[in-house]
Amino acid sequence: MDLLSIKDPSFLKDMNIDQLKELSNDIRHFLIENLSKTGGHIGPNLGVVELTIALHKCFNSPNDKFIWDVGHQSYVHKILTGRADQFSTLRQYQGLSGFPKMCESEHDVWETGHSSTSLSAAMGMAIARDLKGEKSFIVPIIGDGALTGGMALEALNHIGHEKKDLLVILNDNEMSIAPNVGALHNILGRLRTANKYQWAKDELENLLKKIPAVGGKLAATAERLKDSMKYFLVSGMFFEELGFTYLGPVDGHNFEALFEQLQYAKKTKGPILLHVITKKGKGYKPAENDTIGTWHGTGQYKIETGDLIKPVNAPPAWSKLVSDTVLKLAKKDERIVAITPAMPVGSKLEKFAEEFPNRMYDVGIAEQHAATVAAGLATQNMKPFLAIYSTFLQRAYDQVVHDICRQNLNVFIGIDRAGLVGADGETHQGVFDIAFLRHIPNIVLMMPKDENEGQHMVNTAIKYNDGPIAMRFPRGNGYGVPMDETLRTIPIGTWETLREGKDAAILTFGTTIPMALEAANLLQKQGFSVKVINARFIKPLDEKMLKELLDTNMPILTIEEAVLQGGFGSAVLEFAHSHGFTNVIDCMGIPDKFIEHGSVNELLREIGLTKEEVVKRIQAFSPKIQKRA
Amino acid sequence: MDLLSIKDPSFLKDMNIDQLKELSNDIRHFLIENLSKTGGHIGPNLGVVELTIALHKCFNSPNDKFIWDVGHQSYVHKILTGRADQFSTLRQYQGLSGFPKMCESEHDVWETGHSSTSLSAAMGMAIARDLKGEKSFIVPIIGDGALTGGMALEALNHIGHEKKDLLVILNDNEMSIAPNVGALHNILGRLRTANKYQWAKDELENLLKKIPAVGGKLAATAERLKDSMKYFLVSGMFFEELGFTYLGPVDGHNFEALFEQLQYAKKTKGPILLHVITKKGKGYKPAENDTIGTWHGTGQYKIETGDLIKPVNAPPAWSKLVSDTVLKLAKKDERIVAITPAMPVGSKLEKFAEEFPNRMYDVGIAEQHAATVAAGLATQNMKPFLAIYSTFLQRAYDQVVHDICRQNLNVFIGIDRAGLVGADGETHQGVFDIAFLRHIPNIVLMMPKDENEGQHMVNTAIKYNDGPIAMRFPRGNGYGVPMDETLRTIPIGTWETLREGKDAAILTFGTTIPMALEAANLLQKQGFSVKVINARFIKPLDEKMLKELLDTNMPILTIEEAVLQGGFGSAVLEFAHSHGFTNVIDCMGIPDKFIEHGSVNELLREIGLTKEEVVKRIQAFSPKIQKRA
Repeated sequence: MDLLSIKDPSFLKDMNIDQLKELSNDIRHFLIENLSKTGGHIGPNLGVVELTIALHKCFNSPNDKFIWDVGHQSYVHKILTGRADQFSTLRQYQGLSGFPKMCESEHDVWETGHSSTSLSAAMGMAIARDLKGEKSFIVPIIGDGALTGGMALEALNHIGHEKKDLLVILNDNEMSIAPNVGALHNILGRLRTANKYQWAKDELENLLKKIPAVGGKLAATAERLKDSMKYFLVSGMFFEELGFTYLGPVDGHNFEALFEQLQYAKKTKGPILLHVITKKGKGYKPAENDTIGTWHGTGQYKIETGDLIKPVNAPPAWSKLVSDTVLKLAKKDERIVAITPAMPVGSKLEKFAEEFPNRMYDVGIAEQHAATVAAGLATQNMKPFLAIYSTFLQRAYDQVVHDICRQNLNVFIGIDRAGLVGADGETHQGVFDIAFLRHIPNIVLMMPKDENEGQHMVNTAIKYNDGPIAMRFPRGNGYGVPMDETLRTIPIGTWETLREGKDAAILTFGTTIPMALEAANLLQKQGFSVKVINARFIKPLDEKMLKELLDTNMPILTIEEAVLQGGFGSAVLEFAHSHGFTNVIDCMGIPDKFIEHGSVNELLREIGLTKEEVVKRIQAFSPKIQKRA
Repeated sequence: MDLLSIKDPSFLKDMNIDQLKELSNDIRHFLIENLSKTGGHIGPNLGVVELTIALHKCFNSPNDKFIWDVGHQSYVHKILTGRADQFSTLRQYQGLSGFPKMCESEHDVWETGHSSTSLSAAMGMAIARDLKGEKSFIVPIIGDGALTGGMALEALNHIGHEKKDLLVILNDNEMSIAPNVGALHNILGRLRTANKYQWAKDELENLLKKIPAVGGKLAATAERLKDSMKYFLVSGMFFEELGFTYLGPVDGHNFEALFEQLQYAKKTKGPILLHVITKKGKGYKPAENDTIGTWHGTGQYKIETGDLIKPVNAPPAWSKLVSDTVLKLAKKDERIVAITPAMPVGSKLEKFAEEFPNRMYDVGIAEQHAATVAAGLATQNMKPFLAIYSTFLQRAYDQVVHDICRQNLNVFIGIDRAGLVGADGETHQGVFDIAFLRHIPNIVLMMPKDENEGQHMVNTAIKYNDGPIAMRFPRGNGYGVPMDETLRTIPIGTWETLREGKDAAILTFGTTIPMALEAANLLQKQGFSVKVINARFIKPLDEKMLKELLDTNMPILTIEEAVLQGGFGSAVLEFAHSHGFTNVIDCMGIPDKFIEHGSVNELLREIGLTKEEVVKRIQAFSPKIQKRA
C-alpha cells in the first residue's frame, strides 16, 4: 500500500493477516530504501515491523500508550502514525527525529534516547491512570539489552510489588547495540529454548488451588512443591518471582502468535511481561547476518550489496585513536584494564578485547556499575580505562563523585562523543560534561586540540597517578595531522599559546580551536592582533598563564562546544574574580536550551558558534581595546 | 574484655564460641553506652555484631577484603580493628567517621556512604586479584534494602555472568532505613520461611549429573526437570538463576550456624550469595521493637528508657514543613502525588501516606526510578512531588536531565538536606546540587530564606505549570518565624531586598542570609552601607534587579553554602560578563575539596563561611568603593 497516505493506525483494524504481511513487506522496502539514503537505525526497526503492526492493531493508540525504550526502534510506529512522508528528512536538521517526539505526534507519549527509562515512565503513567479512574493499556516496549540497565531493574522490582496493570513487551533480539552480556541474558537464552507449557498455566493454577491447606511444616513443603511444579510448567520463573505474569516466548514475526498472546495479555490483570523473540535486521540479509552490531545504526549504504558508503581516506576516528593508544600502552603496563558499558564497537575496543580478553570488560548497559568497577580496580593499584560516551556518563554522575573522585582513585575516563553529536540529537549531545564534572574535587579534565595531542594526552592520563583524570574527545574523525612516534606526557594544567597577539586573547580547546584560529586570521586583516591559546586543561586551569594574561588587561573571549552555564568560561570568570581581576571577558558556548538533531555544522550555526560570531565578539571589544591603549 | 585494648582482629582466632558470645555482649554494651552520648547508627550496628565477629574470625582482613555497603554498619568492624578508643569522637569534627575511611585503617578498603556500591567495587577488586594472580576472599556485605538500588542489580547481573570468586553477604534485616518495598523483598520473605534443603544440594547435583544425556525435545524436558527439582530442593532460585550459588538463610546471631556457612562458602567456587537473617537493634529493646526506622540512626538517648533526647520547643523541621505544606495542598489538588526513594520517615511523609495511601509511593532505594516515575506522572497532567535528599539526587542526575528537564515536565523536586549536613560527613554533604542542576535547561531552582517563605515556595512550585521546579532546603529546623495563614505564590525569578545599602551589595539565599545580615550590621558600624538581597531564585536569576545593581557599579559579594565552581556566584559572573559589565564581584562558597564530618558550624568555620569573613571581603572592596565615589 501507499505508506505516504497513512494518517493514523486505525486502518489496521480492518486488515486481515495476508494484508498485514503485505504491509510488513512494504514497510521493510520503504525502510531499506529510505535509510540507504539517510542512514539511521535500520537493524532495530526491521526487527520490530510485525510487532509494531500487531501492537497498533490490538491496541488503540494514543489512548493506549506505547512507550518505546531507547526509542531508535520507533520508525515503524512513525510510519503507522502518519509520518512516512517525512522520512527523507530523517535525523536531519529540522527534519524527522530518529526518536519519539511529542511535538511530532500525539502517538508519541514519551521521549527517549537513553535506554532503560520506559518501565519507570510506564509506572508513573499507570499510577496516574488509576488515580484518574481512566481505562487504558500502558505498554512499554523494552529490549533485552536495556533491561540490564539499573533503572529498569529498579522499576521491575517496584512494578512487581505494586501489581498495577501494565504490559511490558520484552523485545528480545539477543543483542542491544553489541551482543548482550550478563546473567539476565543467560536466563533469556534458556527461556528461548524452553518448551512452552504456558498454555497449561491456568489449569495448573486451578489444580494447585485444590491442594488442601495444611498447617506447620507440611504447609511450607506444600508451598514449595507448588512453586516447584509451577517452575516446571511455567517458563519465566525469574520474572514470575519478581511478581510478573510471564507470557511467551513468542515469535515476533508471526502475526497469529502475536495476536494470540496480546489478546491473552489484554485479559490478564496485574503486571505482565510478554517475551517476544525478534531478529534484528529481519528481511535484509546484510543486516540479518550482522553479529557484532554494524547494522544497529548506519550511514548511507548500497542496497544491493550492503556496502556501507564511507568517506575514502578519512583520518582515523577519535574512538579508534584513543582505544588504540590505550592498547599500545597496555602492552607495556599490566595495570591497564578497559571497561565499557555495552559499547565495545562504538568505543573501538575490539582489538583490545582480542589482545587482552581478560583485561577488557563489557559490563552491559550499566554505566553506574561500570564506573564503580573501575573505582574498585583502582583501589587495587590497577589503571582502569573507562570508555564511555559523554551523554551516558550522565548516568554515572554520582559514581564519579562518590566512588571515583571522593576516594581520589586513579581512574582514566575516556569521554567519547563530547560536544555536539549531530543526527542523534538532543538526547545524545555531549554538552553537559564540563558543567557536571568541573565542580567535582580531585578530577583532572582535558581535551586535545588534535589527534597527535590526543595520543599524548592518553599517555598522560595513563601515567598520571594522583587521582581521576578524564579526557573528552569529539564524535567523528581527527584531522589527519602527522603523528609523533614517541609518546610523551603533557604537564597537568598547562596550556599552549598557538598564536601570539596583543589586542585580545581567545581561550579555547578541542574542536573550536580551528574556528578561533580562522577568526584570528580574519581579524588580523582588520588590524586586530589576537592571541589564541589552546586551553587544553579545563581543570585545573593553567593558572600561571591565565594570571599573566589577566595582568596584561587584554580582553578575553572564551569559546567552548559545551553548555555555557557552569562551563569553562565560568571557570575563567571564577578565577579572574577570585583573584581580583575585572577584565573584559566574554564567553561563547552552547546556550541554555536543548539542542535538537542536525549536522554539527548546522547546529553550530544555529547557536552562533561560528568564526563570524568570534570576529563579531572580538570587534565588540574594540572600544575597550582602544580605551586601554 | 577491654575493647580499648584491641589492636587488630587476630585475637579472635583463638576464641571459642562462649568467649565470642561474651565479646558480643561487651560490644553491644559498648555501643549502647557510647552512642547514647554521641548518637549514631545504633540499629544497624547492633544487628551485625555476631556477623562482623564471625567474618573477622573466618577471614583474614585486610588481605581478605570486607566491603561494607552504605557503611553505617561498620562500627563493630571499627572496634575489632582497633578503633574503640576513638568512639567518644564518633561523627564529630576531626573525630572518628561514621563510615569506613581508608585513612583510619588498612582494614577499610572501600569508602561508602551512598548505598548499593559494594558489589561493583567487589567486582573491580576481584578482577584485579585474578589479573595479579593473588589469593584473597572478597566479601561485600550488603543489606536487603541496598540490593534494590539499580547499580547493585546491574552488578548482580554482571557478577553472575562473569563467575568470579566472590562472597556476597546479604544482610537481611527486613528493613533498610524504612521498611523495605519491592518484589525482591517479597522473594526474600519467602526464602526466610522456606525449609532448608540446602544441605542436600551437593547430593542433588551429583544425582542430576547421572541423568543420561538425551537429544532433541526430550533433552530440553530433562533440563527443565533438573531445574525444577533443583527449585524444589534449593532455596534462592532467584539468585541461582542470576548465576549465584545461594546459601542460607542462616541466623546471623548464631555463631555455630554462621561458621558452618562461612566455611562452606570458602570452599565453594564462583559467586556466592549467603543470605544472613539479622535483627536491627538486636540486644537493645527500644531499638529491637522499632518498626518504622526511628532507631536506624539517632542522636543522644537515655539508655534505661530509650527516650530520645531532643531539644525542647525546637522550631519545625524543614522536611516536615515542606511535606505538611504539600499535604495541605494535596487536599485541594488531586493531581499531587508524592514519591520517595526509601525516605518516608526522613522526608516526613508519614502523614501524607496516612491521608492519601494511593498518592504516596515509596519506591525503595531507587533514585533513578523515582525521578522517572515522577516524569511519567507529569506526562499525564499529574503534579508529582519528588522528595529526595540533595546527595541522593546525584544518583538521578541523568533522569533529571533526560526525562524531566528535556521533556520540560511539571515535576516538583523537593531537595532536602541541601548544604552542609554535619555528622554524616563528606558522602552526604548536599553541596553539589546547584552546580549539577543550574546548567540544565528548563529547570527553576530556588531556596527560601525561612520557613514562612518556604511554605509559599512550596505553593509556588505546586502552582507552577511551565516545567520542572526544584526547591532546596537545609537539614534541621527552621527559625520559628511567624507563619502566614494564607499561602501565596512568589513570582518566578524575583529576588527581594532585605536591607538597603549603597557601598556594596551581598547576594545570597537560604541559610547564609543571617550571616550576611549580621555582617552588614557590623559593617554599618564601621561606616560601610551594605545592601543585602535575598537571591531566592538561583535559576532564573532576577535579571532586572541584577542589572540595576550592576548599573550602580557597586561591588558585589555572593555567598552560598554550596560549591563555588559552577555555583550561584558563577551564574552572577556569567550574567554580568554576558551583559558587558566588569563590576567587582567576589564569591564566597565551598572550596574545591570534599568536606568531612563535624557540626555545620565547625565546618562553616573551617571553610571560612563566616560573618567575619564576609566583613573582611567587604572591607577588601574598600579601595574600589572609594575609587568609585
